[in-house]
Amino acid sequence: MQNFDLHNPTHIVFGKETVGRLNDLVPAGARVLILYGGESARRTGTLDEVRAALGDRAVVEFGGIEPNPSYETLMRAVEMIHRQGLNFLLAVGGGSVIDGTKFVAAAVHYKGDAWDIMETHGAVVEQAMPFGCVLTLPATGSEMNKGSVVTKAATKAKLVFASDHVYPRFSILDPTKTYSLPLPQVANGVVDAFTHVMEQYMTYPVDGRVQDRFAEGLLQTLIEIGPRVLAESDNYDARANLMWTATMALNGLIAAGVPEDWSTHMIGHELTALHGIDHARTLAIVLPANMQVRREAKRDKLLQYAERVWDITEGDVEQRIDAAIGHTRAFFESMGVPTRLRDYDIGAKHIDAVIQQLEAHGMTALGERGDVTLAQSRRILEASL
Amino acid sequence: MQNFDLHNPTHIVFGKETVGRLNDLVPAGARVLILYGGESARRTGTLDEVRAALGDRAVVEFGGIEPNPSYETLMRAVEMIHRQGLNFLLAVGGGSVIDGTKFVAAAVHYKGDAWDIMETHGAVVEQAMPFGCVLTLPATGSEMNKGSVVTKAATKAKLVFASDHVYPRFSILDPTKTYSLPLPQVANGVVDAFTHVMEQYMTYPVDGRVQDRFAEGLLQTLIEIGPRVLAESDNYDARANLMWTATMALNGLIAAGVPEDWSTHMIGHELTALHGIDHARTLAIVLPANMQVRREAKRDKLLQYAERVWDITEGDVEQRIDAAIGHTRAFFESMGVPTRLRDYDIGAKHIDAVIQQLEAHGMTALGERGDVTLAQSRRILEASL
Repeated sequence: MQNFDLHNPTHIVFGKETVGRLNDLVPAGARVLILYGGESARRTGTLDEVRAALGDRAVVEFGGIEPNPSYETLMRAVEMIHRQGLNFLLAVGGGSVIDGTKFVAAAVHYKGDAWDIMETHGAVVEQAMPFGCVLTLPATGSEMNKGSVVTKAATKAKLVFASDHVYPRFSILDPTKTYSLPLPQVANGVVDAFTHVMEQYMTYPVDGRVQDRFAEGLLQTLIEIGPRVLAESDNYDARANLMWTATMALNGLIAAGVPEDWSTHMIGHELTALHGIDHARTLAIVLPANMQVRREAKRDKLLQYAERVWDITEGDVEQRIDAAIGHTRAFFESMGVPTRLRDYDIGAKHIDAVIQQLEAHGMTALGERGDVTLAQSRRILEASL
Repeated sequence: MQNFDLHNPTHIVFGKETVGRLNDLVPAGARVLILYGGESARRTGTLDEVRAALGDRAVVEFGGIEPNPSYETLMRAVEMIHRQGLNFLLAVGGGSVIDGTKFVAAAVHYKGDAWDIMETHGAVVEQAMPFGCVLTLPATGSEMNKGSVVTKAATKAKLVFASDHVYPRFSILDPTKTYSLPLPQVANGVVDAFTHVMEQYMTYPVDGRVQDRFAEGLLQTLIEIGPRVLAESDNYDARANLMWTATMALNGLIAAGVPEDWSTHMIGHELTALHGIDHARTLAIVLPANMQVRREAKRDKLLQYAERVWDITEGDVEQRIDAAIGHTRAFFESMGVPTRLRDYDIGAKHIDAVIQQLEAHGMTALGERGDVTLAQSRRILEASL
């Protein structure tokens, strides 16, 4: 096992009818900016519920944060905070709104060009505004971690930053708030959480037994509940298990003490930035191909995954690995998420541009061993066609 | 799944050669009281290493905290803090030292009779001194939770308190610090961690899939590494897995959203208080008997445990439950921990006194459903003979 630090100060409030807890969680007298995405937050009544829970605190709203939150949009929120003297942020939405809120929280206090935060991957962040979350879409884990992904629309750069200063103070996770989600978003959430676990699990063994068992437990849970969250949109326990799994999939716990990959995400980000494909769908495209191309380097963990997660014990080593990759692809497809570039009208001729973007963003030595070069990324994309 | 709050602010620093991190973790200029147990902390060099890491901070030592820390001893530490104007506590040891430090941290600021803290189970605690830990004995999980068990020697009352104010600020977990432990203490640690998981898992199903899978993963890990930690005292990965498992077994995570039992602990506490049996050994005595006596109420989880943890799939329901309980007992025995009261020279004639103590401490409705009455506790003790 590798050495690690683990320090996650986010206060999770989980369960039915918990939005009212905002009154205890947000400081009395706070001047609050509510950040949200589309109008569904209003239509479903969640915004009204949030405002009611905040009582007589001063509240301003900032809507319109995109599915891949843009620097340009978020900087308007920063201006609004300065102009109106606001001192607490409340993200109401899914990972994009929360990621955007993290950027806003860090940018408010930053003296230079706020895009520096992204280009330094958070190294310049020395403080941030306090914020909380009301999660409405289980997927990214942003509600309990210190990471954020923001896109500069002008240059199609989709970058990641992380900072200890942007852990949410609290996150309210009410599974009933997910009942009204469109099913493709729920399916994306399952695939996103699944891939988050795989980025931290499908590497090489370091005898991190707790981490492996926890990762496998999250994967098994997603496989069990995936069909149910699509078939029964108001099944509380199914939605609760999805919500908690997605949070645990990326809150630092299963990564503590083990190597991490993340090449699937980095390649996927470029597909989103260039082609507008949903984040989770890019992961469903890249992950099976990534496992296929790197099957030698990942052999031990692929075999462990085959046996413990998919109960594959028949066949020789290569057959078991094939079966494990095949089951992964089939699971994503069963969630209604296509797993080939061609399913999104992307062909071999588009690969060069993706590689150029990876190069432009310094993504030339990805993966748990830093051996996913541009040539390797090209092979992965070719295997995704 | 049940509603829950989860908020664990302890900063974990895990791994080899991490004691030096104290210099960053303890505030500069702090006036530190180091609390420890026996002289092994000095003999192994850990105390020297800790003092070196603390640099030129003012440091006072308080040794002699007992395996079941006593109120009487701990109040002498409280006096020392007041007398010498100390402002930071550092526990160097295992669960008893850390539990004791938590009591001291809370008692320093308490205005009345500090035993009130125990009698109210922590309800009167409104603040506590800041403290950190250097863990040397993996077992109780106290290094990352808010609970503490303290005994009043005068009355043989062993009680529990919990408070959000007594989470450690940080805990350093260096598995190499466990190499020199006597093997019976290591075995006790395995049994203690195992039973902690069972108290939060072996109840009734609430569709808490992540919690169940995590609990099962911890149990499987303990079963796998148990023999190895005894056979190879300097096997880093085995000790690292034990240390991390014991921490995760009782830091609030696997309890979040599910029912909890704890009757094995409450009955075990009385056996320790009356007969001086090691804490973990009392758990090894009570747990198998507890599962046996309450097998109807726990049927669904016993069957899940049988299949997922012990791979028991043959036989009818009662046979599988018998096998699961038998495997549990055999595992404890294989760790060198006897599981019958008679192994500790305790017989039927001693049961009345245990029941009287349970009654005196208000332990009349234990367990996840509050249906472990004194009569039920008696049946459990009789089944432990």
